[in-house]
Amino acid sequence: MDAAVLFSGGKDSALAALSLDRFYDVTLVTGTFGITDDWRHARRAADRLDYPFRTVDLDPAVADDAVDRMRADGYPRNGIQRVHEHALERVAGLDVTAVADGTRRDDRVPTVDRSTARSLEDRRGVDYLAPLAGVGRGAVDRLVDAHLTVRAGPSEALPRADYEAELRAHLADRAGPDAVASVFPAHEQTVVRGRHPATDGDTPK
Amino acid sequence: MDAAVLFSGGKDSALAALSLDRFYDVTLVTGTFGITDDWRHARRAADRLDYPFRTVDLDPAVADDAVDRMRADGYPRNGIQRVHEHALERVAGLDVTAVADGTRRDDRVPTVDRSTARSLEDRRGVDYLAPLAGVGRGAVDRLVDAHLTVRAGPSEALPRADYEAELRAHLADRAGPDAVASVFPAHEQTVVRGRHPATDGDTPK
Repeated sequence: MDAAVLFSGGKDSALAALSLDRFYDVTLVTGTFGITDDWRHARRAADRLDYPFRTVDLDPAVADDAVDRMRADGYPRNGIQRVHEHALERVAGLDVTAVADGTRRDDRVPTVDRSTARSLEDRRGVDYLAPLAGVGRGAVDRLVDAHLTVRAGPSEALPRADYEAELRAHLADRAGPDAVASVFPAHEQTVVRGRHPATDGDTPK
Repeated sequence: MDAAVLFSGGKDSALAALSLDRFYDVTLVTGTFGITDDWRHARRAADRLDYPFRTVDLDPAVADDAVDRMRADGYPRNGIQRVHEHALERVAGLDVTAVADGTRRDDRVPTVDRSTARSLEDRRGVDYLAPLAGVGRGAVDRLVDAHLTVRAGPSEALPRADYEAELRAHLADRAGPDAVASVFPAHEQTVVRGRHPATDGDTPK
């Protein structure tokens, strides 16, 4: 069975992929609006994790809507949620048994509630999997420490490929760089640099 | 890292164990009130899955409360939820990094919501893991078909070791056999008979 895991290059989606590869042939998939080429950072992380990688095109109108929403709200949460749901729809269009993401129990955004998940499954004929939906922050951190090497830093400096980089660029284009600092609070992100040697080659434990 | 997986002998808790054994040394744990020896069915399933097994004692007063609740409600849901939370507390008293169960996204009972999970983690100093919390019914069925051999049948006939068998016996003792049929709706259960050969020996895919 094939699973497409929505992948940002960060630790959560990488850990989701590790959780699933016992059961599925995993491909890491990054959505891109074509605004920047930040998806290349995800490809590099996927290579280091030794998973197949591909991109899916996202609809630029969704980026416009998301940025409008963020400017109106003054914070990014609802815009990011909108983009995440759009990306899941696009990934569900691939020929796979399951689509997955790295959403965690303790996340505030993005979240995929039960009715959204069931709607995606019923309409698209795929399984939606959130292997970290029942895993808290502490356990995620302990598993990442044990199985991945990561680099942490402030969002604006770290070469990641989640929607945030493209949405930041789009917001700066439309409203100037000050809008970015006003909408996006400062926070730390991670980028995956590889697996720990003990977990190379898919050998459990 | 050690994880204690609350285990009934059924497919959900078995699949939860498979999901976790890439990351943790898994022990399957069954709670018993001492009302029946149905825990032996779980030990047999654990042997067939080739995981270590142990029991934890549950408080008989909780069985009394649960049965009273079920009789008052006329259905088992709230009583089973109470027993599940008590069992998680007891398992969290073991010397492990994590406690886990087989609760699924589409389950109505038992469920462990975010605040209950965080409370358990904060008070007990363990991680609580629900590896199937982000997995729907269809995906669970497909994964079980691929990785486990199971036997299905009506609850009252299948030799399982979840709380239901002990609670049915306790209810029959206190209120007669007719009370059992009135509180517990007829439903199918599964009992795990082993792994598929392809997944023996912990070899992924």
